[in-house]
Amino acid sequence: MLHELFTPSVQHSLDLVGIFVFAISGALLAVRKNFDVFGIAVLAEVTALGGGLFRDLIIGAVPPAAFSDLGYFITPLLAAVLVFFLHPEVERTQRAVNVFDAAGLGLFCVTGTTKAYDYGLGLTSSAALGLATAVGGGVLRDVLANEVPSLLRWDRDLYAVPAIVGATIVALCIRFDILNAATSGFAVVAAFLLRLAAMHYHWRAPRAWNRRSAAAEE
Amino acid sequence: MLHELFTPSVQHSLDLVGIFVFAISGALLAVRKNFDVFGIAVLAEVTALGGGLFRDLIIGAVPPAAFSDLGYFITPLLAAVLVFFLHPEVERTQRAVNVFDAAGLGLFCVTGTTKAYDYGLGLTSSAALGLATAVGGGVLRDVLANEVPSLLRWDRDLYAVPAIVGATIVALCIRFDILNAATSGFAVVAAFLLRLAAMHYHWRAPRAWNRRSAAAEE
Amino acid sequence: MLHELFTPSVQHSLDLVGIFVFAISGALLAVRKNFDVFGIAVLAEVTALGGGLFRDLIIGAVPPAAFSDLGYFITPLLAAVLVFFLHPEVERTQRAVNVFDAAGLGLFCVTGTTKAYDYGLGLTSSAALGLATAVGGGVLRDVLANEVPSLLRWDRDLYAVPAIVGATIVALCIRFDILNAATSGFAVVAAFLLRLAAMHYHWRAPRAWNRRSAAAEE
Repeated sequence: MLHELFTPSVQHSLDLVGIFVFAISGALLAVRKNFDVFGIAVLAEVTALGGGLFRDLIIGAVPPAAFSDLGYFITPLLAAVLVFFLHPEVERTQRAVNVFDAAGLGLFCVTGTTKAYDYGLGLTSSAALGLATAVGGGVLRDVLANEVPSLLRWDRDLYAVPAIVGATIVALCIRFDILNAATSGFAVVAAFLLRLAAMHYHWRAPRAWNRRSAAAEE
Repeated sequence: MLHELFTPSVQHSLDLVGIFVFAISGALLAVRKNFDVFGIAVLAEVTALGGGLFRDLIIGAVPPAAFSDLGYFITPLLAAVLVFFLHPEVERTQRAVNVFDAAGLGLFCVTGTTKAYDYGLGLTSSAALGLATAVGGGVLRDVLANEVPSLLRWDRDLYAVPAIVGATIVALCIRFDILNAATSGFAVVAAFLLRLAAMHYHWRAPRAWNRRSAAAEE
Repeated sequence: MLHELFTPSVQHSLDLVGIFVFAISGALLAVRKNFDVFGIAVLAEVTALGGGLFRDLIIGAVPPAAFSDLGYFITPLLAAVLVFFLHPEVERTQRAVNVFDAAGLGLFCVTGTTKAYDYGLGLTSSAALGLATAVGGGVLRDVLANEVPSLLRWDRDLYAVPAIVGATIVALCIRFDILNAATSGFAVVAAFLLRLAAMHYHWRAPRAWNRRSAAAEE
């Protein structure tokens, strides 16, 4: 029952939108790294599907959705083709891409948490796995591109916190038995708006205390 | 039945040859990176077994073949020992290593696709997983060595395309119900020859369009 | 039966100690890499739980212990908080951290080997997986921090060999049917002392033969 937060076709369409925008971010990084057309496709696939793949391996949902639903596999390829031919135009719409990426982040942290709970994980673990679903693809993207994951860098706007908030709202809704289309929609929107605000106001997470003095010692 | 493309012992021997040459490439990179003897062994194991390990986790074949067949585990160690003592000689035979590596590529894309289909994946997913089987170990090798995966770089001869062709031939043969030792042998040889030709003629995949102008803007 | 090397509560406490010290090493690297508070938490979690997660995926123990036992998940967060506020003090106790890390190494290679054997793997594979349990988290930590894994570098004191020795002792004890709390405790202590000695005497593994002449050629 938990599965059916939205009608299946609505859920599936939302998934594909999230996958598409995540794939765009992977393909754009591949272009910046000067990869060839195949590298663009690989980075698009990994960014879009990596988080969900990790979640499915952990909860034992094999074969993962990424390999059992053809749409999940083909959507990133479409994003790769688009970026291959039109990347200057796509980069110029970076703001729009960022907005969609924020939507994907909100969506995936909610569906990831729900799916993990459906497979029997506890509430805390489910929320952690929802977070991993939302941010895992981006981490894999950066590892393959041989860069420090932007998720971990202090000089990037908050990315994990919105996903943590979204996943936590879902976990609390499950805890109090009020998870439905409305409340999970609220969780998606909360994470989405928080990420937009973080980008707009350049919110950042603190580094370790005494960092400055420690750096001076070096 | 699909499993039995070749007699089991022939299949197993071919697997070990592919694992051995992949392990050689991993061990040689470890020597170039100045790793110690243990780093050489780890990189040999990861390069040789990483692709198959990923495939087995995805299709739910646990424990993976890499951990249930002792020969799969020991073969990379033999390659590591060989490279440890004789690496200048092995590097001098780089051309021969490349030819064997091409054979491993052809073999693994075919057996990977077949095994994935046997475990119930669709044709497209099976071909994708066949490709991942063939190239996954090399990607893991480069990630562990902290280098940009050579699979993704535009300045390397085509590596993925031969594996894609081999996997696609197998998928088409399954689709039209004509997969047997002859047709899958043909797929192996096609991928093998294509990779040899790519190395000989330095075929490369294109980068994103307008790359030059985009680079000039930077 | 093999599971019950120690009483469950003793075993669990030892696990948490190992997880805690591994998490400290991850959090300290995150501080050195200038990551934000979230990056510190992620690196603490990955370092502490990565090896066991890999083992559990390979043997098909899903969901992995890291996601089914809340203590496993929360302990690294405590380590992250400690390092966040007190990292200069923690770094000053680096020697103590190293001693605990050696204890974690000894413990995890033993419990990893035992658990893998319990799940039906062969003796060699079990020992290999015990080694992977002990060192896997550190490798993932370095990959995420975009550094060459210190496990693979020749200029670091022996780290893998103590774990190999501990795992091998366990495998031999299983082989000769003498595995019990005493013998597995002996394996833990052997790996622990070997690692301490390697740090004290700066034991290192050899690089490939002829390395110097090969380097001169470059």
